[in-house]
Amino acid sequence: MPSPSLDPALAARLGELSDLRHAGHVLAWDQQVMMPAAGGRARGEALGTIRRLHHELLVDAQLGTLLDAAADAEPRIVRTVRRDHEIERRVPGELAAEISRAGSDGYAAWLAAREANDFAVFEPALRRNIDLARRYAGCFPEAAHPYDVLLDRYEPGATAAQVATLFVALRDGLVPLISEIAMQPARQALPGDFPVAAQREIGLEMVQSMGFDRTGWRLDDAVHPFAVAPALRDVRVTSRFDDHSLTGLFALLHEVGHGLYEHGVDPALARTTLDTGVSLGVHESQSRLWENLVGRSPAFWTHWLPRLRDRFPLSLRDIDLDAFMRAINVVRPTLIRVEADEVTYSLHVILRFELELGLIDGTLDVIDLPAAWAAKMKQFLGVDVPDDLHGVLQDIHWSEGIIGYFPTYAIGNVLAAQLWQVAQAEIEGLDDALSRGEVGALRVWLREKVHRHGRLYTPAELIEQAVGGPLDPAPMLAHLRAKYGALYGL
Amino acid sequence: MPSPSLDPALAARLGELSDLRHAGHVLAWDQQVMMPAAGGRARGEALGTIRRLHHELLVDAQLGTLLDAAADAEPRIVRTVRRDHEIERRVPGELAAEISRAGSDGYAAWLAAREANDFAVFEPALRRNIDLARRYAGCFPEAAHPYDVLLDRYEPGATAAQVATLFVALRDGLVPLISEIAMQPARQALPGDFPVAAQREIGLEMVQSMGFDRTGWRLDDAVHPFAVAPALRDVRVTSRFDDHSLTGLFALLHEVGHGLYEHGVDPALARTTLDTGVSLGVHESQSRLWENLVGRSPAFWTHWLPRLRDRFPLSLRDIDLDAFMRAINVVRPTLIRVEADEVTYSLHVILRFELELGLIDGTLDVIDLPAAWAAKMKQFLGVDVPDDLHGVLQDIHWSEGIIGYFPTYAIGNVLAAQLWQVAQAEIEGLDDALSRGEVGALRVWLREKVHRHGRLYTPAELIEQAVGGPLDPAPMLAHLRAKYGALYGL
Repeated sequence: MPSPSLDPALAARLGELSDLRHAGHVLAWDQQVMMPAAGGRARGEALGTIRRLHHELLVDAQLGTLLDAAADAEPRIVRTVRRDHEIERRVPGELAAEISRAGSDGYAAWLAAREANDFAVFEPALRRNIDLARRYAGCFPEAAHPYDVLLDRYEPGATAAQVATLFVALRDGLVPLISEIAMQPARQALPGDFPVAAQREIGLEMVQSMGFDRTGWRLDDAVHPFAVAPALRDVRVTSRFDDHSLTGLFALLHEVGHGLYEHGVDPALARTTLDTGVSLGVHESQSRLWENLVGRSPAFWTHWLPRLRDRFPLSLRDIDLDAFMRAINVVRPTLIRVEADEVTYSLHVILRFELELGLIDGTLDVIDLPAAWAAKMKQFLGVDVPDDLHGVLQDIHWSEGIIGYFPTYAIGNVLAAQLWQVAQAEIEGLDDALSRGEVGALRVWLREKVHRHGRLYTPAELIEQAVGGPLDPAPMLAHLRAKYGALYGL
Repeated sequence: MPSPSLDPALAARLGELSDLRHAGHVLAWDQQVMMPAAGGRARGEALGTIRRLHHELLVDAQLGTLLDAAADAEPRIVRTVRRDHEIERRVPGELAAEISRAGSDGYAAWLAAREANDFAVFEPALRRNIDLARRYAGCFPEAAHPYDVLLDRYEPGATAAQVATLFVALRDGLVPLISEIAMQPARQALPGDFPVAAQREIGLEMVQSMGFDRTGWRLDDAVHPFAVAPALRDVRVTSRFDDHSLTGLFALLHEVGHGLYEHGVDPALARTTLDTGVSLGVHESQSRLWENLVGRSPAFWTHWLPRLRDRFPLSLRDIDLDAFMRAINVVRPTLIRVEADEVTYSLHVILRFELELGLIDGTLDVIDLPAAWAAKMKQFLGVDVPDDLHGVLQDIHWSEGIIGYFPTYAIGNVLAAQLWQVAQAEIEGLDDALSRGEVGALRVWLREKVHRHGRLYTPAELIEQAVGGPLDPAPMLAHLRAKYGALYGL
């Protein structure tokens, strides 16, 4: 690892950028977790100013000069910051402001459309967002495809062509597996009462074994669970529990997976702006690895099921490990992405990617989106979309102009399985350790392979170093076929 | 009230200043109430950057130009902001940075001195802070006394000469009253168990009657209770309850008094930087009015004592209103300011003011401070100071270079009594309303007289408008003599 020996003037600039990001994180966390409702308008204005000041510092020409002077001493840091600097400089301030306004308006239109359960109410706002996204992409005429520019904001260096190739292979593996499962008798998740307070207690025990501790972390409630780290030693995860389901426990493992990534960055990178996750796809690989590869495995529950049973003796009295595994691994094609299981989830994402691509390259008109959505849902998952609320209006992303983001969810699933395959090979006795409730070796391994590097390498470099090759759907497909083949007796 | 019609460019500047103050408030609140302990270092850096950016925006010459152009349209807003701008420009950046460093170092030295219970450990750091305060004052050579410059940071426009005159009159009224009380048999506060959860519930009922509501306020725990308002509709108060005392209830009334001031500013002043309290003394008048003039009055407890007794039936079974009034109004000369009662409190402040004045004008050397402290404690309150922890090391303020702040506590007490006298005359049936638990008319009156104006008038103008004259110790002395004369049978 480097021990950054940055020029003091450059370090001061990067420190200011870090501090504004820190402030933005705290303001955003507070907004969702703590702020009284009436504070929303003032908070929106304050966040806008913080982001504008961050933009102004990042595009400042003097930063470019300082980067030139420092390139030899810290080439990797300089390369990463210069990329941020140059991308930010390309987009005219007026366009950025218009995108921001359209995002606010689009969110309001989306809420109104959901209220009316009518895509037509949302359509003009979405058209404006798509148009602005194309204008944004136009600021980077050297890109092979305009979608590459949008994707790059969330997955630096990835291209539409790469993702399309990856997703075709993934889709072609998932669709037949899901068809086979759908032919088996339907199963159901665990019924029963799981009082929230007890779930929170055992959830805390689980994540404390993962590395969560109160000196550097917080756990709070939020309507939509998320994780954010104002600093490497100030990691905030949120969760949402429900008395009649255990899904909140898996969501907690997911968010702590995100938190461990931020927490595990080498402290030498603090205040360089490189002390965070390198891409949303790599971030999602960490959350999904803990949620699904660890958190839905028999080894993990060999340790935790008896403890869970102690908390919920009535509801789990007759549930042995096999029954529990079947219950927490139900596969069922459904309409809503955020409720999808480990197998069907990525198809929801691939559907959105294919539609986004069409909207951006002009082969799909906004007006035709609901029909295209329904056709793909039928094709991929065999389900009928009854209305817009259960279809094209379900996600917030497009309303705020967030286009190019969805693929990172499936990239995370793919990479999680690749990392898991290597971890199984490199960590001796990993399953035995999990069966004893010991996850320290895995955390250390992930820190070594992924977390500590922050944004020092590109996502492609990091993935190559960690798993010995590029993104590859084969480990995920093999994992799913082996696991669900056994569970469903295929 | 004005309806600000500011030039858009000026409004944008003031909005940015407001947003940075907002961010600083949220970061500081979070630091004390929410942040994991390990996040402290990164938070300190982030707060430093936010404050530096605020400074840079405030001293920017272009702001001066915009103020010149806007002076006719909004003279009061321009006058207030120009004053901030010109004061901030006077202090060289290097001196400001040195003061900030010395404050951090001084805080560390103060902690070490408290650990050792030895003023000598703190003395060099305090000497440095005093020296820097004099250099700061030297940036304003037109001031009649260097202390005026320090005081002005917290009580704009006040002077050492005015405060000295006020405090001599206050001291000369308080010392004999306290001597008379001290000759009566000693009394004690309420013994008993008052479980924290029940105190919090009835405390919330009380402050909800004052105007606290969850849509625009939060109540949390903090080691040292405080109030802060990131925005007019985002007011955060903190409290600290103790199972064996009711003092937390009075601290809560105090902090909500501060919160009502911020919450009551005219929304037309939002984002002008004038949407906050005009001075610390006026702010303290609001907290003290609710804590002492309302919160320790028989009328208030006529309504609330039966409700308190419902919560704590065992501890309050034999306590009638007269006994309760005696118990919550015990006067006892003690060593520690923050534990002092309504009568003795201001003498602790006057002592500190007189010592600060000597340190700044050079008639008192830092080395002689503990002896001077002990002599004044004996003279004012008749108590002996056993050691530095119970004397000169008790307050944090001087360690951080905060000099000129203490007088505002006593100014608040004086002004609270003046406001109370006028409120009694102008609000018909005020005591009857309090006896029924109705404080709405008082809140509306305070909003009209004080809150809504924000920083639109100078403190002197505001006080003149509200009470028909300048600061005057007579109402406070009359109130205390009447109240405690009756309670102690003098």
